[in-house]
Amino acid sequence: MPHDLHDFFYPRNVALIGATDNAVKPARAILENLFHFSGAVFPVNPKHETLLGRRCYPSIAAVPEAIDLAVIALPAPLMEQELGRLHEKGVRRAILISSGFAEAGPAGAGMQQRIAAITKHYGIRVIGPNALGVYNTENGLDSFFVSRERVSRPAPGRLSIISQSGAITVILMEALSRDGLGIAKAVNYGNRLDIDDADCLDYFADDPRTGAVAMYMESVADGKKFLASAKSFAAKKPLVIWKAGKFELGAAAVASHTATLAGTYGLYQAAFRQAGAVEAYTFDHMIDAAKAVALMDFPCVGDRLLVLTNGGGMAVAASDQAQREGFSMPPVPGEVRARLEKAFPPFYGMNNPIDLTGSGRNEDYYTALTEALPHYDAAIVIVLMGATTVTEGATGLIARACHEAKKPVVCCILQGLGYTQEAMHELLKLGVPVYPSPERAVRALAALRKATCRTCGKI
Amino acid sequence: MPHDLHDFFYPRNVALIGATDNAVKPARAILENLFHFSGAVFPVNPKHETLLGRRCYPSIAAVPEAIDLAVIALPAPLMEQELGRLHEKGVRRAILISSGFAEAGPAGAGMQQRIAAITKHYGIRVIGPNALGVYNTENGLDSFFVSRERVSRPAPGRLSIISQSGAITVILMEALSRDGLGIAKAVNYGNRLDIDDADCLDYFADDPRTGAVAMYMESVADGKKFLASAKSFAAKKPLVIWKAGKFELGAAAVASHTATLAGTYGLYQAAFRQAGAVEAYTFDHMIDAAKAVALMDFPCVGDRLLVLTNGGGMAVAASDQAQREGFSMPPVPGEVRARLEKAFPPFYGMNNPIDLTGSGRNEDYYTALTEALPHYDAAIVIVLMGATTVTEGATGLIARACHEAKKPVVCCILQGLGYTQEAMHELLKLGVPVYPSPERAVRALAALRKATCRTCGKI
Repeated sequence: MPHDLHDFFYPRNVALIGATDNAVKPARAILENLFHFSGAVFPVNPKHETLLGRRCYPSIAAVPEAIDLAVIALPAPLMEQELGRLHEKGVRRAILISSGFAEAGPAGAGMQQRIAAITKHYGIRVIGPNALGVYNTENGLDSFFVSRERVSRPAPGRLSIISQSGAITVILMEALSRDGLGIAKAVNYGNRLDIDDADCLDYFADDPRTGAVAMYMESVADGKKFLASAKSFAAKKPLVIWKAGKFELGAAAVASHTATLAGTYGLYQAAFRQAGAVEAYTFDHMIDAAKAVALMDFPCVGDRLLVLTNGGGMAVAASDQAQREGFSMPPVPGEVRARLEKAFPPFYGMNNPIDLTGSGRNEDYYTALTEALPHYDAAIVIVLMGATTVTEGATGLIARACHEAKKPVVCCILQGLGYTQEAMHELLKLGVPVYPSPERAVRALAALRKATCRTCGKI
Repeated sequence: MPHDLHDFFYPRNVALIGATDNAVKPARAILENLFHFSGAVFPVNPKHETLLGRRCYPSIAAVPEAIDLAVIALPAPLMEQELGRLHEKGVRRAILISSGFAEAGPAGAGMQQRIAAITKHYGIRVIGPNALGVYNTENGLDSFFVSRERVSRPAPGRLSIISQSGAITVILMEALSRDGLGIAKAVNYGNRLDIDDADCLDYFADDPRTGAVAMYMESVADGKKFLASAKSFAAKKPLVIWKAGKFELGAAAVASHTATLAGTYGLYQAAFRQAGAVEAYTFDHMIDAAKAVALMDFPCVGDRLLVLTNGGGMAVAASDQAQREGFSMPPVPGEVRARLEKAFPPFYGMNNPIDLTGSGRNEDYYTALTEALPHYDAAIVIVLMGATTVTEGATGLIARACHEAKKPVVCCILQGLGYTQEAMHELLKLGVPVYPSPERAVRALAALRKATCRTCGKI
């Protein structure tokens, strides 16, 4: 039996209620985005006969096919009546985009309660209200009311996003596509009148396109249900969770944002640990950890870290962070050192960190990794591309050495000029995540370690 | 009397000993960079009559003028003899680029000791060895052996950089120019055979072009001298220090990098606090804090923080971080709230955070700041530029409101697509620093607060 959420991501067709060509209205952006969907799209609005060159229908009843999914972008007070029409048409899935419900005060909360009762009675499953809905890179389904000119869409990839906040959904997607990372699916469930955080986790646990999940939450709908879903998800795939509303000021902001209770942060942390999820502490940490778990798939990673660099200072910063994250940095074994001393000039540093200095060449990265990486569990490779002896060709050699050693490796490249960004995208394509600071690189590797060791119980 | 370091930054002319046109040698990049200097440049190398179209001299003795500053890029074993020739010529300032001294083991350390004795005897002041030397945006002096194609140079600005690591000097400059921030001067003192961290601080304390300093250190040359210099610097100007080699693994990396003792981190932290310096904990933190203190000049900033956003989730993250950094977030005063309720649609959040939601327009940012900012000490303004109602014009309005209120304000804009980067550069030009995450924005404001309140003793 398909999961309750399946038809939200894989409907045969979609109707957009409240479709418009008015450029300042959210429904205009939704309509344009739905045109990227591989299935049929039916705009509905009694005021238009056509919209953006497509036929527009006066009502859902007038649409000539049975409809799998309705996206509703009508003012909150019109929602109740429209859901009746959906029921008459036999529609069983609805994404409610509109705000003005529980998050907007007592009157809105009343409307939301009535709608919850009606949809339950009709057997209509609901995402929203106050939500962006869904984005699926497999079939192009995209109910988001942000234009593609303003927010670029990531290409297909292994990571899926679950978010309580629409804005966070969008900026996560923006940040990932900026970094050249793809996603599988994204869902913003908003006020979760019906479909909630745990339902989304359950669906993605079984979704073959989803290899890992990055999740933003301010509160849970049902603590017990969430913990069970997170546990069974994390037993199969890496789960990174960013909980906002941790402290008093953040919790107050949650109350005005999603009108929910942020709860006691300590309880959330305990739940994440118990579930085997990786907690991301900040926005950057979320992006960094998501990149690591989306790109690299390793069983239980040990703590023996190799640091390879062409700039000593950055390696010192990486080493400090390695200590914070519980890595060890054993020295380069004697026989490896002997071989490196033959291959390298005497002024290279042959300890751990291995320091190629400002004279390090592309092939030196390959040599050092090939010799030393088999003796470690993971590596941080720092490439300062300002050095004249390192060129764009370093990326291919570094990726090759990592793949040959079959060990997780992350790179640190400062993303300044255009050619450094190309190097970063090149490495990402080869499956090596790149970070703009040594500390972030180490922290991302630590997140991967926590995510992959979740079942061995070592961390 | 001019400071000892003055002639390093403002010589009338420079000789480059070991000049070459060989593209793989560091001295080639130095020569090209020196051609940006406004004074005369004399390449010296007996093997060439001309270099890159300029006359080249066989020896320092053959140069037809008295020389203020010599930059020496010769192999370490040739250094001693060359310093004798400098002395005969009457040169009193030398930057020793070459590595292979104390950082390279006992033989190098012996050479460094001999050179220290010789230069002291001759009265030659030295920056280096194993150093990039100096960069001065006022006269174009640039002794760095990294090409401008690989590492862009920041435009003139208020911030100066002092760094023990050459690579960190370069990536700091690269990161600042990427973000559109200028610098006054930069110095990498390397093995500090003579000129050390404290000397650089003393010089920048009196340099009228330097408004603030960002400093990277792995160790101090002389703890007492450093503390005195840091204290007297920070009493006049903001000082941000990033200490690397904090923990065991980092300290071990310091030993192989600069062959110095990283020392006890707790003692450094105590010294920074006592001096009134702001400690940066990571590379990102260093960049973020440096941007804040370089762009904004305020007396003692209080703790009452306003958060203004068009995306609730980002404001929650900012509020969590505000709590961590010791800010308070009092609610918007009643009379201000009443005026905002008249100006704004009812679904905007009017607490603190003020949440303009995905419908917030450019002018709403101006209205909110103009009404509320006078009641607060500082503000974080979050602009999610994916919203269709916000355009590039928002930046000018936000900057105007900040300047009118005369309060420190930092922005958070995710730097994804091209137009968001333009918005960031535009705001920076108007004196408002921009950060790519809510937590980094708050942390930067906290750094500004620590730096500006250093004399009031409140923080």
